[in-house]
Amino acid sequence: YQLFSKEGEQVGRVNGLAVMGGDSGVVLPIIAEVTPSLSNSEGSVIATGMLKDIAKEAVQNVSAVIKNITGKDIANRDIHIQFVGTYEGVEGDSASISVATAVISAIEQVPVNQTVAMTGSLSVRGDVLPVGGVTYKIEAAAQAGIQKIIIPKANEADVLIEDQYKDQVEIIPVSTITEVIEHSLVGNEKKNIVDKLKKVSNVKWNFDMPEVVPASIENMKKSGTGSKNA
Amino acid sequence: YQLFSKEGEQVGRVNGLAVMGGDSGVVLPIIAEVTPSLSNSEGSVIATGMLKDIAKEAVQNVSAVIKNITGKDIANRDIHIQFVGTYEGVEGDSASISVATAVISAIEQVPVNQTVAMTGSLSVRGDVLPVGGVTYKIEAAAQAGIQKIIIPKANEADVLIEDQYKDQVEIIPVSTITEVIEHSLVGNEKKNIVDKLKKVSNVKWNFDMPEVVPASIENMKKSGTGSKNA
Amino acid sequence: YQLFSKEGEQVGRVNGLAVMGGDSGVVLPIIAEVTPSLSNSEGSVIATGMLKDIAKEAVQNVSAVIKNITGKDIANRDIHIQFVGTYEGVEGDSASISVATAVISAIEQVPVNQTVAMTGSLSVRGDVLPVGGVTYKIEAAAQAGIQKIIIPKANEADVLIEDQYKDQVEIIPVSTITEVIEHSLVGNEKKNIVDKLKKVSNVKWNFDMPEVVPASIENMKKSGTGSKNA
Amino acid sequence: YQLFSKEGEQVGRVNGLAVMGGDSGVVLPIIAEVTPSLSNSEGSVIATGMLKDIAKEAVQNVSAVIKNITGKDIANRDIHIQFVGTYEGVEGDSASISVATAVISAIEQVPVNQTVAMTGSLSVRGDVLPVGGVTYKIEAAAQAGIQKIIIPKANEADVLIEDQYKDQVEIIPVSTITEVIEHSLVGNEKKNIVDKLKKVSNVKWNFDMPEVVPASIENMKKSGTGSKNA
Amino acid sequence: YQLFSKEGEQVGRVNGLAVMGGDSGVVLPIIAEVTPSLSNSEGSVIATGMLKDIAKEAVQNVSAVIKNITGKDIANRDIHIQFVGTYEGVEGDSASISVATAVISAIEQVPVNQTVAMTGSLSVRGDVLPVGGVTYKIEAAAQAGIQKIIIPKANEADVLIEDQYKDQVEIIPVSTITEVIEHSLVGNEKKNIVDKLKKVSNVKWNFDMPEVVPASIENMKKSGTGSKNA
Amino acid sequence: YQLFSKEGEQVGRVNGLAVMGGDSGVVLPIIAEVTPSLSNSEGSVIATGMLKDIAKEAVQNVSAVIKNITGKDIANRDIHIQFVGTYEGVEGDSASISVATAVISAIEQVPVNQTVAMTGSLSVRGDVLPVGGVTYKIEAAAQAGIQKIIIPKANEADVLIEDQYKDQVEIIPVSTITEVIEHSLVGNEKKNIVDKLKKVSNVKWNFDMPEVVPASIENMKKSGTGSKNA
Ligand SMILES: [Ca+2]
Ligand SMILES: [Ca+2]
Ligand SMILES: [Ca+2]
Ligand SMILES: [Ca+2]
Ligand SMILES: [Ca+2]
Ligand SMILES: [Ca+2]
Ligand SMILES: [Ca+2]
Ligand SMILES: [Ca+2]
Ligand SMILES: [Ca+2]
Ligand SMILES: [Ca+2]
Ligand SMILES: [Ca+2]
Ligand SMILES: [Ca+2]
Repeated sequence: YQLFSKEGEQVGRVNGLAVMGGDSGVVLPIIAEVTPSLSNSEGSVIATGMLKDIAKEAVQNVSAVIKNITGKDIANRDIHIQFVGTYEGVEGDSASISVATAVISAIEQVPVNQTVAMTGSLSVRGDVLPVGGVTYKIEAAAQAGIQKIIIPKANEADVLIEDQYKDQVEIIPVSTITEVIEHSLVGNEKKNIVDKLKKVSNVKWNFDMPEVVPASIENMKKSGTGSKNA
Repeated sequence: YQLFSKEGEQVGRVNGLAVMGGDSGVVLPIIAEVTPSLSNSEGSVIATGMLKDIAKEAVQNVSAVIKNITGKDIANRDIHIQFVGTYEGVEGDSASISVATAVISAIEQVPVNQTVAMTGSLSVRGDVLPVGGVTYKIEAAAQAGIQKIIIPKANEADVLIEDQYKDQVEIIPVSTITEVIEHSLVGNEKKNIVDKLKKVSNVKWNFDMPEVVPASIENMKKSGTGSKNA
Repeated sequence: YQLFSKEGEQVGRVNGLAVMGGDSGVVLPIIAEVTPSLSNSEGSVIATGMLKDIAKEAVQNVSAVIKNITGKDIANRDIHIQFVGTYEGVEGDSASISVATAVISAIEQVPVNQTVAMTGSLSVRGDVLPVGGVTYKIEAAAQAGIQKIIIPKANEADVLIEDQYKDQVEIIPVSTITEVIEHSLVGNEKKNIVDKLKKVSNVKWNFDMPEVVPASIENMKKSGTGSKNA
Repeated sequence: YQLFSKEGEQVGRVNGLAVMGGDSGVVLPIIAEVTPSLSNSEGSVIATGMLKDIAKEAVQNVSAVIKNITGKDIANRDIHIQFVGTYEGVEGDSASISVATAVISAIEQVPVNQTVAMTGSLSVRGDVLPVGGVTYKIEAAAQAGIQKIIIPKANEADVLIEDQYKDQVEIIPVSTITEVIEHSLVGNEKKNIVDKLKKVSNVKWNFDMPEVVPASIENMKKSGTGSKNA
Repeated sequence: YQLFSKEGEQVGRVNGLAVMGGDSGVVLPIIAEVTPSLSNSEGSVIATGMLKDIAKEAVQNVSAVIKNITGKDIANRDIHIQFVGTYEGVEGDSASISVATAVISAIEQVPVNQTVAMTGSLSVRGDVLPVGGVTYKIEAAAQAGIQKIIIPKANEADVLIEDQYKDQVEIIPVSTITEVIEHSLVGNEKKNIVDKLKKVSNVKWNFDMPEVVPASIENMKKSGTGSKNA
Repeated sequence: YQLFSKEGEQVGRVNGLAVMGGDSGVVLPIIAEVTPSLSNSEGSVIATGMLKDIAKEAVQNVSAVIKNITGKDIANRDIHIQFVGTYEGVEGDSASISVATAVISAIEQVPVNQTVAMTGSLSVRGDVLPVGGVTYKIEAAAQAGIQKIIIPKANEADVLIEDQYKDQVEIIPVSTITEVIEHSLVGNEKKNIVDKLKKVSNVKWNFDMPEVVPASIENMKKSGTGSKNA
């Protein structure tokens, strides 16, 4: 069964790319949804698809970017992320930008262009980081009829695809999640999301100094640790 | 003992279908109930029947659909899902639509038609996804006296049942949980549930922009990450 | 030491029945108590007696029935369930109706008839489900001096006890937890509990539709998932 | 080092009895303390001394009795239970009445008579249940200079101690935790605790019926589960 | 690198003593700090240094003493305890009084005398309990230039150090954490801490009787458990 | 791919140093971000990069320093720490000062000088503790084009680098996290952070005496534990 779609647009659904058996690419659909949270006091980020350790940590890194977009309302929402058809397990962090895009689309209710596929790791600050197997992934996406492929800028030199695919697919190297969103979401509201992502990355969160009772001058002099740090 | 019923209607009870030993189908009853939650601050989704990993994740995916129907009241309720008689364990995600239907029936107190059996995986957004063993399952349901069998539309081409069953059972291919509900619940309130499911899939949840103190222009210029993302 | 009593009545104590070594029955006392909860925000259901996996899940199924009787006050109470003397472990779900009866007795402070023993599995909706080893259990109870034995109606055909026991014990087949309560509790308040159980099984819990901002018509048309589910 | 004291009185400290190597008794001191809880919303019961599974469950059973004495204030307190010197681990439930007595002494700030030692299991409702190795334990306590030994009434027939100990120690068989307290605590306040224990075992906790919207008569008739339970 | 200091005074830092390889002592520095808690509703006690099971339980026992000093404010603080340089793991409970002293120093911001080293287990009620390897530890401390060594009074008879160390170090046997504090902290505020420790060990925490509805006389007579306990 | 940058400045990003294969250094970038917390009631510190046990404990030690800077607002924030590219796992505590610096930079939105690399363990009170492999790390940093390298003062004597590197890199030995911040952050706000760190290390947190009911004089005399501690 072809679990992905290569045309039209859908909310909360992204064509990711994976490597199978070391030397073969595959289109890996990722579906996200936002729901009221099971708890009155905290949100959850729930990823299914038999994720292994590195993949689970990649979802945690993506959640940092998501929480910066949603603000404190995240505590009232559960984020569901579903890797479709991966009964044998998912490893690695190269689906990170796909996960982030699916979740942002679901949050903002803005559709994702299904003619696009993507691969890339993500830092907790929104930087797109390099991944492995880029050439295998591009060829698999091209064979599947995908038209545009987003890859990390740091992987640009790794692209060694056969001539037959060069006219077929457009390769889009990116450095930040903001660029991923620009090339994958559709519709007028996309600009608002891009603006929000830019603003968030330069904010300073509020932290008050702790409410403290200053120790006496005498104690400060006596305390070895105190004078060392001071 | 025949643990399922093939006639009449019951609240919170669905005839699921499973494959045993690789090439033999079986009717697998699933019972759901909604209760006050043990906690004042969070609901729980509790599934019993010795579920293995993929089956547990399938229940998590179903819970996304459920939470979108119930809204924030879910935090005050525990959802119990019981796979009956599966002492040897349950694996796979093909009971997903059965679980969702049993829970929706229990929530809405609208009965399920017991002449129906069903098999199908479910996305967190309510799409019915394909499963394995459809032919075995249909034959087992037909032999057990079931009259209608709901299957994923993506599995329609897989149905290769023997002639003897063709007049006996009606096969209903579906693409969304909304269609599952239309074909399995009974009574006047069914229409309200279908309407609710349609409405929920197009809502946009509220997320305020984070309460932030903008960093100074000077800092924005200096910060490498800032300018990269911007 | 004989850990069970076969006469009189006691609050929170039930004579369960178990199979030992595959072909030998034994009377297994189960004691329950209700206490203030350790937590200000959630109740706990705590079962001791070295329960194995299926037995632990059976307690979870029983808790669904309990929570429907207690309502939201359950969040302020801890429910303790003690299998007495089972240092080698307890497996299976056939003690479910015994556990439910002991807890209901403790909650309502209404005594259990100690001349009764019982075996039966329980659905989350209060249906009594069949169990194994019914004949061995009945013979053990009869030998121990028990006068009435409650069994699942679905197990009625399995009862193949020797003649000597036929006059000694009364076999009571039941289909619901309500019937179990009718045959095992004593005193005037029993009727109130039975009424409560009947009422609870037909209530519809309140779930408000989620507080949502409808997406624009334009977005609804564009979104593939939206139109699929609609 | 002799870790226990055999004279005087102490708050929160009880001389328990254990079996070592199968055929040798030993005095096992148990110390309890009550503190403010680490959490604003829940208390904890923390037992140290390398307890194994049955011993951990015994502590849970004891906690049922404790919570019934303390009421809901337990959520603001942590209960610490320390088995002294058991670096090789503790198994079994025969220290249950010692644990309960040490905790009650710590809660009420009423001292325990250190000339007493004790052994006995405990039900969640306060019944003293039989244990193994009673003779070995009594002989060890006598040799250590203990004057009174509390044992379960159900173990009375097991006491086969040598003549030399018969004049040395007094054996006190008990059936309930109330009797244990009567024979082990000292001072005027002991009577208040005994009264409290008697009152608690006959109270009925408040549970409101769930806040429910009755389903329509029509639904009640249609629903199979409804009519089965009714 | 010499990780400990043997002169001056420091807040939150204590020279503990450990045995390495069975017959060799070593000075083991322990550092504590008090911080705002990560949670709005509960404090945490966090110990690092690859602690094994008995060592982890020793930290739990120490926390009982700490909570009695801090009162309910503990729920707003996290207590950090760091065993320095123990990459191979720490076992045993002989660092308990060092941990308690470091934490009390950090809480009260009163410095610890660095010319002192100490070893001793601790009960949840503040009693100092005996430990092993006292002679090895004293010799190691003396060789390292430590001037005073606090040991459990119960270990006094175990001290068999060589003559060369007898003039070099002062041995201080203690029975309670109060005495440990008296001999290890410096400055005027020490007296306040000692007074607080004395007061705390004799307080009685508030526990209200549970809010209960007395069962009727009739039920009390009928209920077997009730009459047994009464 | 070169995952680190050796010039300019970035918020929340630090060039750490690690040892690979026992005798080879490597620049290990660490990225931090601060976000709203998933929970309404507690913050989390989340570290990714396949950290092993000692590395996880090092992050806990660093969190003590962080919480002292942020005060109670930490309960509203999640701290994300990402070790980049460490798919094979990270062990040891020598990245502690890098982690602390990245998090402080992210919290204060003050950039880190990317021409600096650093290695050092950290105490919960902010002391920089010695690490292994300092020479290998310095050589690797120099070869990578790094200009300044921060090391623990306790490791100063271990630096045995080849002549070729001596003019190339500046070695900066430090004793406290305050000094690390002074040598690694850039811009005018750095001074405020240094001041805050100095002030925090000498504060005394508020702890009220527990709200207690003094036991009667009579009880105090009777209680053995009481009189021992008093
Ligand atoms: Ca939670
Ligand atoms: Ca930021
Ligand atoms: Ca919970
Ligand atoms: Ca949605
Ligand atoms: Ca409550
Ligand atoms: Ca119901
Ligand atoms: Ca907790
Ligand atoms: Ca009771
Ligand atoms: Ca927590
Ligand atoms: Ca006390
Ligand atoms: Ca908060
Ligand atoms: Ca401090």
